[in-house]
Amino acid sequence: MTRELKTPYLAADVIIELIDHPGRPIVLIERMNPPFGLAIPGGFVDRDQESVEQAAVREAYEETTLTVRLIALLGIYSNPARDNRLHSASAVYVGEAHGTPRAADDAKAVQILLPEEIPAPLAFDHDLVLADYRQFRATGRVAPLRGCLVIP
Amino acid sequence: MTRELKTPYLAADVIIELIDHPGRPIVLIERMNPPFGLAIPGGFVDRDQESVEQAAVREAYEETTLTVRLIALLGIYSNPARDNRLHSASAVYVGEAHGTPRAADDAKAVQILLPEEIPAPLAFDHDLVLADYRQFRATGRVAPLRGCLVIP
Repeated sequence: MTRELKTPYLAADVIIELIDHPGRPIVLIERMNPPFGLAIPGGFVDRDQESVEQAAVREAYEETTLTVRLIALLGIYSNPARDNRLHSASAVYVGEAHGTPRAADDAKAVQILLPEEIPAPLAFDHDLVLADYRQFRATGRVAPLRGCLVIP
Repeated sequence: MTRELKTPYLAADVIIELIDHPGRPIVLIERMNPPFGLAIPGGFVDRDQESVEQAAVREAYEETTLTVRLIALLGIYSNPARDNRLHSASAVYVGEAHGTPRAADDAKAVQILLPEEIPAPLAFDHDLVLADYRQFRATGRVAPLRGCLVIP
């Protein structure tokens, strides 16, 4: 059955809040590889190796050198058009970390930004994700459920 | 890059609350295919075709004939050992529907059960999912984030 089974590629991203910086800013990375631009740290989940939460913590560490504690699942972003390379579904978490990030692995540089300072457009659908995050930060509510099907 | 990229197979399940039945019971299905047993309705997301939410609504419809409105993302269940066929990650939603389910597609039969009536063990890790759902139903809190990594 696995030979024919094609599901979206699964990724995990973390919006990292720097809890000992004034105003609790977040970390964005400048991507080393296409699509270029600023993005939320994260990457693909390794099959047979790890859970989605583990992938989120691992990728955050690899790209920023921060040890992140996940605090919420913001949402799953899986519109087939969100990444023009392939159909990816990303589980986006909110996490918190102490210290100061350093760029590593797929990250060319890191930026530390308050939510209201974040420029647009970001890579992928991360403008949408950040809009949901600002809402979460203001209200505690996670991302709305989108794109439900009209049954024929 | 897609040739080498192996991420968990992505599924979507829905805990369907029957809002016009006394006590707001939920729907479980008896599986037609291995692993046998009772399970939450759901199935794999079709790559390039649909979002995870769309897959959840489609699968709920295919297996129960109910048109479901998703109300919350309970959690993502992705322990590599949760399904002994392959590494699957399941996005589990809570949804609500009117009417009475009928078994179809991969479902051999449906059962309508109150949360406290649900037998164990269910297929996959659905006992864990139902425990999280009972907590959600009692408190409004979604599933806890589990299995985070200890960074070396």
